[in-house]
Amino acid sequence: MHVAHGNMGKYVVNDDLVTSVNGRLTALRDAIARAGADGFVVPRADEYLGEYVPPSGERLSWLTGFTGSAGLAIVLADRAAVFTDGRYTTQVAQQTDPALWERRHLTDEPPAGWLKRYAAGRRVGYDPRLHPQAALDRLAASGVTLVPLDANPVDAVWIDRPAAPTAPAEPWPDAFAGLTSAEKREATAAVLRADGHGAAVLADAHSVAWLLNMRGGDLDHTPLALASAILRDGGAVELFMDPAKAGPALREALGDAVTIRPRDALAGALAGLRGTTVRIDPEATPAWYAETLRAAGATVAAAPDPVRLPRARKTKAEQDGSRAAHHRDACAMARFLRWFSEEAPHGELTELSVASHLLAFRRAGDRFRAEAFPAIAGAGEHGAIIHYRATPASDRAVHANEPFLIDSGAQYLDGTTDVTRTLWTGPDAPPAELRTRYTLVLRGMVALAATRFPQGVAGPHLDAIARRPLWEAGLDYDHGTGHGVGAFLSVHEGPAAFSRHAANVPLEEGMILSDEPGFYLPGAYGIRIENLLLVRADAHAKGSRPWLRFETLTLVPFERALIDADALAPTERAWIDAYHARVLVEIGPGLDGPTTEWLRRACAPLS
Amino acid sequence: MHVAHGNMGKYVVNDDLVTSVNGRLTALRDAIARAGADGFVVPRADEYLGEYVPPSGERLSWLTGFTGSAGLAIVLADRAAVFTDGRYTTQVAQQTDPALWERRHLTDEPPAGWLKRYAAGRRVGYDPRLHPQAALDRLAASGVTLVPLDANPVDAVWIDRPAAPTAPAEPWPDAFAGLTSAEKREATAAVLRADGHGAAVLADAHSVAWLLNMRGGDLDHTPLALASAILRDGGAVELFMDPAKAGPALREALGDAVTIRPRDALAGALAGLRGTTVRIDPEATPAWYAETLRAAGATVAAAPDPVRLPRARKTKAEQDGSRAAHHRDACAMARFLRWFSEEAPHGELTELSVASHLLAFRRAGDRFRAEAFPAIAGAGEHGAIIHYRATPASDRAVHANEPFLIDSGAQYLDGTTDVTRTLWTGPDAPPAELRTRYTLVLRGMVALAATRFPQGVAGPHLDAIARRPLWEAGLDYDHGTGHGVGAFLSVHEGPAAFSRHAANVPLEEGMILSDEPGFYLPGAYGIRIENLLLVRADAHAKGSRPWLRFETLTLVPFERALIDADALAPTERAWIDAYHARVLVEIGPGLDGPTTEWLRRACAPLS
Repeated sequence: MHVAHGNMGKYVVNDDLVTSVNGRLTALRDAIARAGADGFVVPRADEYLGEYVPPSGERLSWLTGFTGSAGLAIVLADRAAVFTDGRYTTQVAQQTDPALWERRHLTDEPPAGWLKRYAAGRRVGYDPRLHPQAALDRLAASGVTLVPLDANPVDAVWIDRPAAPTAPAEPWPDAFAGLTSAEKREATAAVLRADGHGAAVLADAHSVAWLLNMRGGDLDHTPLALASAILRDGGAVELFMDPAKAGPALREALGDAVTIRPRDALAGALAGLRGTTVRIDPEATPAWYAETLRAAGATVAAAPDPVRLPRARKTKAEQDGSRAAHHRDACAMARFLRWFSEEAPHGELTELSVASHLLAFRRAGDRFRAEAFPAIAGAGEHGAIIHYRATPASDRAVHANEPFLIDSGAQYLDGTTDVTRTLWTGPDAPPAELRTRYTLVLRGMVALAATRFPQGVAGPHLDAIARRPLWEAGLDYDHGTGHGVGAFLSVHEGPAAFSRHAANVPLEEGMILSDEPGFYLPGAYGIRIENLLLVRADAHAKGSRPWLRFETLTLVPFERALIDADALAPTERAWIDAYHARVLVEIGPGLDGPTTEWLRRACAPLS
Repeated sequence: MHVAHGNMGKYVVNDDLVTSVNGRLTALRDAIARAGADGFVVPRADEYLGEYVPPSGERLSWLTGFTGSAGLAIVLADRAAVFTDGRYTTQVAQQTDPALWERRHLTDEPPAGWLKRYAAGRRVGYDPRLHPQAALDRLAASGVTLVPLDANPVDAVWIDRPAAPTAPAEPWPDAFAGLTSAEKREATAAVLRADGHGAAVLADAHSVAWLLNMRGGDLDHTPLALASAILRDGGAVELFMDPAKAGPALREALGDAVTIRPRDALAGALAGLRGTTVRIDPEATPAWYAETLRAAGATVAAAPDPVRLPRARKTKAEQDGSRAAHHRDACAMARFLRWFSEEAPHGELTELSVASHLLAFRRAGDRFRAEAFPAIAGAGEHGAIIHYRATPASDRAVHANEPFLIDSGAQYLDGTTDVTRTLWTGPDAPPAELRTRYTLVLRGMVALAATRFPQGVAGPHLDAIARRPLWEAGLDYDHGTGHGVGAFLSVHEGPAAFSRHAANVPLEEGMILSDEPGFYLPGAYGIRIENLLLVRADAHAKGSRPWLRFETLTLVPFERALIDADALAPTERAWIDAYHARVLVEIGPGLDGPTTEWLRRACAPLS
């Protein structure tokens, strides 16, 4: 899945909803006034600050009608604006009422400037549970007075708000995790002790899931139980989530060192940390935590989430699980690709039918739990929309003789997958320009996958390696080359990424990242090729420093019709032939006869 | 010149000096006690914080005997330590007395830890004119009390201290600079006005030199007049330097808007900024400035030196000047390389004789002013010492049939050069392993030089491109790939660099950087190949975003005997052949007949 993507949202224009938004905005303005403020800021995030938000946390969508994955609304008494980025310009215009909402660009016309212009000298409220301090600091630069409100006025007027999700939380077997929760808690507590921190707040539900070997079903695409936690330097944990979610299996797995408490006990628990130095990740924690701790007389120590790096370094068991999940995913992809190659030339498929067939092939595999994100299935010009999601309104026929981009992934109990292939529907040969550009993208993907490097190198230092074949032709793509991927957890995981804009976090053994260069010609077609890579130790290099290399986890053939073999260097051709040979050997035996035959042709050496 | 290098120092062990150091240390301890402190920190930097220090500023060397370019001493009543980095482990051991000085590693055993251990609870003095605030903050983490001392106790006991340099300061002609000083002052003042700063402190003499189109002779290798300045937001400048340095030509060039004042007027001038917001670069300014300003009631605004980026973006005239300087430098290098190729196989040269011949060839060219740094001339195993400098003590014969590394550069009135070539003395063919590795280094150098990229890409993102051929073989080099280079100014110039450790400063048109990958086998040989690159606009790329490419400024043939042409990709071979053809066309006509003949052979297409 593409690195710039968040939740693709539903992107459905609901006339009833747009009509009722007027009433919602009026009611919210009354509530803001009752709270003694002149305005209010509504972010897209909920109190976990994650990429996905359950329906009960979709305040921005409820208020404005806009369902995209990134945005912010500001409501004043006399005007209101929705801020989104360039991916959502069209969508926000279709989904919001221009009589109520100004539409602004999040970075070109930032909220701070809008506030400075229209709210100078006024008191603008915010819900401190929904904003990290860094975001508030940017807003505060406007010179308006930002006022934390104890009660969120949106919640006060959101009459038909869905209930918070209450899917059961389950233990994730130690056999998949590779470390028991007790081992993880002790190792993390040791970090706190070494840093002189008496406790750490884990506001990120992913961190809680990792630390406690716990998974859940509160979100569609990430197997999370929404929860936060306080870890003490002795290893004890208070877990804040609806106790009804925790059945006997989870309670037994967590044991005595983990106390489950309802969410509304959180404020009191923080207040109980008076006199303690409490570690908080300022990038990933709502401002409310630090405010509450300081008010209670605790000392707040800003430091990275102690679980973030250990979570990114997959254990041996997690690596094995990911390999097994990728094997099953590759079998489903092979069946899907064979099916597509037979059906697509007839011109009777649609984007949605393709996506649902792919999902059906995946569902048939063991340990499948969910799509890791809504599949991006873009025919022809839709492939150029990097965050495209087919809907009944946008769905179109897949024509013969056009490119088709399919970016999809799955959550298996033992691992998370994410793969993109750009296909040619046929039956005729593709145009030369498309083959040329597909081959440039493929060469970049291969160059990065084949890179060996000494320890200390970070993702931002390798991003250009995937771009260089395109750069030589004066072409580029406007997104990062790859993102971290979780172990039966979020398909987008920090802190490492192949991106100029990512932090310089050195790559380490066990990290899993996507390698997905692309090229997009708006209105015409999009190309993206994505494999997942596992960072491994490289024993063959000279010198005393440890070296690293990548193991490719994804085992899905490339589109032969789009490869211009004459444009490949001998080493590139050898890499692709070896990859295809490996796919055939590893995946072929698990397939039915006709699919094996198809795979044999798909994986033959390039001629 | 290699990026990790500073001043190579003299590296001469002077027995008299070592003996007298005992007395110096005793005298300093008395002076520290008289100043009411329990210890004192002696950095290598002087008050300009630059790479080179005049003899009058060599406090660290005077006190300890250590002449390297990076170090710090801390003197307590009962113990004292010198801290240096891995480049200087051997040198510091030879130059300092172990009875007086502990030798510590600057990063592995940092000064803050040593202070914590041996000076807990004590008052350790420092001279606030010699440390940027960031460095003091690191020391302060030790928990000792750091005490700024008005008078430096080293200066109090340094009886035979050389006088500060008083070389004449001269105007640098506008025809070379491309912008008049008045234009630069107005443009920089406009930045201050836009940022709401009433004035800026320029503590870096390079910034002063750039802003005022002024050059001087206070240092051996950089044409600097040591000076600092205060720029007002109206464009007026107070220039703080010995007024005796400024002759009538400079005074006329500077005009009425620049007032020359003696150094001891600086404190008073800062105090006169009461009520003004004064911009200071916290990385490049001694702490004393901000302390003095705050004490006087000025507001200190931390922001980058406003001149740093404009200085890095060379004007059209500076680019033309650099091309002309590189042309002359290439003629000198061609004469040198021909001479070397004829003499080296006889085995009668020494490292020092080679370096002095090269200097003589350069001196014969127009507008030559000085070596840009002491040449690194390393035969055989000396080539593996990245910061090697031949001295009478280390000088050795250049043998037949060995590699020879020569890294050198020059200051010409119109530009600064820096070039490294690794040569084979002959007459026999080199060993296969050496050719293989030379070719890997050359491929990396060429790959970076040939890279085109969209605006926004920074040096740290391109560093890996030069390493990748070596990485494929499990090899690497332990230094950055390249540094910025000034225009008749410092050969090491920020802020852009091809290095993982550099800041993410996007490359811009007009910047000049070195491209110098290498490989070093300690005890055996070193390989480094260095060209300078000029960042240019690339008009041929697709899309709306501006693209950039590199123009290679250095025009010196590579060592044919060390190139394994069979290991080159066709595009790499084509690049090298085209480069050599260009060298012959551009440099050949300026040479005598026999040298032209030699160059013709050196630049023939690879067979």
